[in-house]
Amino acid sequence: MRRSKLFMPTIKETPADAQIPSHRLMLRAGLVRQTAAGIYSWLPMGYRVLRKIEQIVREEMDSTGAQEILMPTIQPSELWQESGRYDDYGKEMLRVTDRHDRGLLYGPTHEEVVTDIFRNSVKSYRDLPQNLYQIHWKFRDEVRPRFGVMRGREFFMKDNYSFDIDAASARISYNKMFVSYLRTFARMGLTPIPMQADSGAIGGDMSHEFIILADTGESTVYCDSAWLDSDPLSLDIDFDTDLQPIVDRWTKLYAATDDKYDPESCPVNEERLYTGRGIEVGHIFYFGTKYSNAMGATVSNDQGQEVPVEMGSYGIGVSRLVGAIIEASHDDDGIVWPESVAPFQVGLINLRAGDAACNEICEKLYSSLSVANVDTLYDERDERAGVKFAEMDLIGLPWQIAVGPRGVKAGTVEIRRRGGKREEISAEAAFSRLT
Amino acid sequence: MRRSKLFMPTIKETPADAQIPSHRLMLRAGLVRQTAAGIYSWLPMGYRVLRKIEQIVREEMDSTGAQEILMPTIQPSELWQESGRYDDYGKEMLRVTDRHDRGLLYGPTHEEVVTDIFRNSVKSYRDLPQNLYQIHWKFRDEVRPRFGVMRGREFFMKDNYSFDIDAASARISYNKMFVSYLRTFARMGLTPIPMQADSGAIGGDMSHEFIILADTGESTVYCDSAWLDSDPLSLDIDFDTDLQPIVDRWTKLYAATDDKYDPESCPVNEERLYTGRGIEVGHIFYFGTKYSNAMGATVSNDQGQEVPVEMGSYGIGVSRLVGAIIEASHDDDGIVWPESVAPFQVGLINLRAGDAACNEICEKLYSSLSVANVDTLYDERDERAGVKFAEMDLIGLPWQIAVGPRGVKAGTVEIRRRGGKREEISAEAAFSRLT
Repeated sequence: MRRSKLFMPTIKETPADAQIPSHRLMLRAGLVRQTAAGIYSWLPMGYRVLRKIEQIVREEMDSTGAQEILMPTIQPSELWQESGRYDDYGKEMLRVTDRHDRGLLYGPTHEEVVTDIFRNSVKSYRDLPQNLYQIHWKFRDEVRPRFGVMRGREFFMKDNYSFDIDAASARISYNKMFVSYLRTFARMGLTPIPMQADSGAIGGDMSHEFIILADTGESTVYCDSAWLDSDPLSLDIDFDTDLQPIVDRWTKLYAATDDKYDPESCPVNEERLYTGRGIEVGHIFYFGTKYSNAMGATVSNDQGQEVPVEMGSYGIGVSRLVGAIIEASHDDDGIVWPESVAPFQVGLINLRAGDAACNEICEKLYSSLSVANVDTLYDERDERAGVKFAEMDLIGLPWQIAVGPRGVKAGTVEIRRRGGKREEISAEAAFSRLT
Repeated sequence: MRRSKLFMPTIKETPADAQIPSHRLMLRAGLVRQTAAGIYSWLPMGYRVLRKIEQIVREEMDSTGAQEILMPTIQPSELWQESGRYDDYGKEMLRVTDRHDRGLLYGPTHEEVVTDIFRNSVKSYRDLPQNLYQIHWKFRDEVRPRFGVMRGREFFMKDNYSFDIDAASARISYNKMFVSYLRTFARMGLTPIPMQADSGAIGGDMSHEFIILADTGESTVYCDSAWLDSDPLSLDIDFDTDLQPIVDRWTKLYAATDDKYDPESCPVNEERLYTGRGIEVGHIFYFGTKYSNAMGATVSNDQGQEVPVEMGSYGIGVSRLVGAIIEASHDDDGIVWPESVAPFQVGLINLRAGDAACNEICEKLYSSLSVANVDTLYDERDERAGVKFAEMDLIGLPWQIAVGPRGVKAGTVEIRRRGGKREEISAEAAFSRLT
C-alpha cells in the first residue's frame, strides 16, 4: 500500500491519559481511536494486526478439531436466569431492555448461549465430544476502563466450549486446549507460561491462566528459568494422540504470580529462579456439569441413561493481545512487531520522492514485492527522510528498505531489520532477502 | 471435513414459524439457531457461508481502494445528539445506560462514529478522498422481526463512508461503489439491479437500492428484460478511471419496484418488460454535508478555506445475503448454493460405510481433494443411502460424489451437480473435474 493513501493518523504528542507503552504507541501510531471510555475504533493499521492475531488463533483452534460458530452479542436474560448467574454477575454486565420490555444483555461470556444450543441439538454420547468456538466481541462494563485495549469495555475474544460424556474425556479436551494455547501464543512471538489457577468449587488441577512475559506487565512472575528457553513450536503435535505427557512436561516446571509465590516453599533455587513481569492473555477452565445441570443439557450415555454433559470453557483475549504484544515488544522508538502479526512486512522508504532514479527503483521493488505477496508499505510522500524513518520505527514493521540518490548511484539500497543495523546491498539482494 | 465430526444439527420437520424458504431451509439444514426473537446463532455451516460472502465483499471493497476499519458496536449517545438523530431514530435504536449512567446505544449505523473519527484525523484536502469501510454487527430493534436472518434484529453488514472535497469528487466515489456493488453481487451468483431511490432532502440522482432477483422476493420488480442478460463480471474495471460511462450504461435501462412502477409511463414495451420479484441487498447514498455540517467535520481546501467534507454512505446486508441467496437459489429438495459461497464444494458420500473397497476409494478421494484445496464434506457415517442423499440435497453443495459397491466393481463413482443428472465416471475423472 502507498503511504499517501493509507489512513493512518499518527500523533506526535504522547496522549496524556495513556499510562502504559502499548496504549501510548497504539494512539500515536494511529492503530486505534477512542470512541468512548474503554470503547475503541480500530483504524486500518490496528485492524490489520487484530485480524492477523485472529487468524493465528483460528488456525490453531481448527487444528485441534474445534469448529467455528458465531453467537450473538445480545442475549436474552432468561438464559442467565436459568443458569443462576443473572443476579450474580453484577454491574459489569450491560443490561438492556428492548422495545417490548424484554430483558436482554450484551454478552460478557457465552456459557449460557452455547449450552442452550447444545441442549437443543445433541442428544447422544455418539455425537460427543464437541468443541465449539467463536471469535467475537464482548462487553464488560468495567468500573474504570484503562490501559487502552488491554482493559477495554468492548473487547474481542476467542471463547470456546467443550462437551464431553465424562470427566476422563473432558480432560482430553482440556489437554488439547492447553497444548494449542502454547502453540498459539508462541506463533505470535510470545513466551507463554501456563499457571495453575483457581478452579472454583469443582477443585482439581484443570484451570490454567496463560501469562506472557513482558517487562511492563501487570503482575510479577516467578518461574523456573527453563521457561525462557521453552519453545512450544518445536513440538510436533498430533491432537488425536494422548497429550498428557506434554501437559505434564510443561506443568512440572515451577511458575507462579506474586499472589501465589512464597519464597519459603518455592521449589526452585535462587540461581534458577527467574523473576519478571507478565500479562494474562488466556484462561482455560474445566467446570464439569455446572451449566449442564442448571440448564438441563443432558445426553444419553452408552447405557441409555440421561447424564449431564461435562463442559469446559477456554478464552483468549484477542484485542488484548494487540496491546500485550506491544508491551512485550517495543523500544524507545516505537513498536517492534513480530513478523507473524505485523500490519506490513516491509516499509519501503523513498528518500527522494520525485527523483526519477529513486522513483524507478522504488516502484520496481514495490511491485515485485507485491507480486511476491510480501505486504509492503511504500512511503512515496514528499517528506523529509527523518520524518519517514521515525514513522517507520514508530509503526514497527519488521523490515525497512530505504532508497536514496547516493545509494542508487552506487547500485545499492539500505536494508534494516526494525531496531537493527543498516546494510547496503543491491535492490535484487534486498528482494531476495524478503521473499 | 468428516460428516460424523461436523456440528450440523439438521431438523426433519419444517419449523412452524418460518414463513419463507430461506428461513425454513436455514433452520432445517442447521445453518443457524434462534437465540432470541430476531437474534441468531450461526452454526458451522451457516458461519462458513457468512464468511465466504464477507470475504467477497471485502475483496471487492479493497479493489476500489477503500480501507477496512472496525468501529465499536456500542456508541456514545452524545455523538447522535450532535448529529441531531438521537431523538429522531425512535424505538428501533437499542438504547443502553452504563453503570455510570452515561447514555450508550447499540449502533444501527455508523455515520456519527465515522464522522467523529474523520474530524479528529483529517485536516486537509490533500488527504482526500478517503473511503473507510467495516464489516460488522449492528442492531435494530425491529418491532416484528421475521423471515429469519432476512429481517433480524442483530445483523451483519458492510457499511462504508466516503469523504470528498466537493460534489464532483463525491460523484467519483459514488460511481466506484455503484460499479463495485454490481461486481460484488454478481460474484455471489446473483443478478443485481440498481434502482434509483429516494435521495432525501439533498435531491439528485445519487441514491440507489440494489435489488437481486428471487422468485420469493419481497417486492415486485419491473424491468427491461435486458437486465436478465447483464453480466457485470464481464466488465474489465479500472477503478482509477472515469466510471461514469459504465454507470450511465447501467442506469439507462429501465427498472422499478412496484411503488414506482406506472404502466402508463413505463418506457419499456410489454414484450421487453420483465416482471419478477426481488430482494433489497444493498443501498448507496450520497448525503453531502449533512453530518459534516452538524458535527463540524471540515477540511481546508486548496484556497486555505475550511469547508465541510462531502460524504456518502454505502451498505450491504451481509447476513441478509445468506437468506437472499437461498431465496434466489433453492428447489424442493433444499438449498442450491452458488459455488462462490458454498460451505463446501463437494459432498462425498460413502454408500456402504465399512465396506473395505468403498472406504478405500472414499478415503483416497477425500484426501486428494483436501490436498487440492477442494473443500469436501465426507459423509462416512453408517446411515442409509437415502438419508445421505437427502441431506446432501438439503444442504446444497454444488457437487456430489457417491461411492457404492456396484460402482466400485465397475471402476466408477457417481458424480452429480446439485439438482443435475448422475454420471458414472472413474474416481480419477471425478477428481479432475473438481480440481
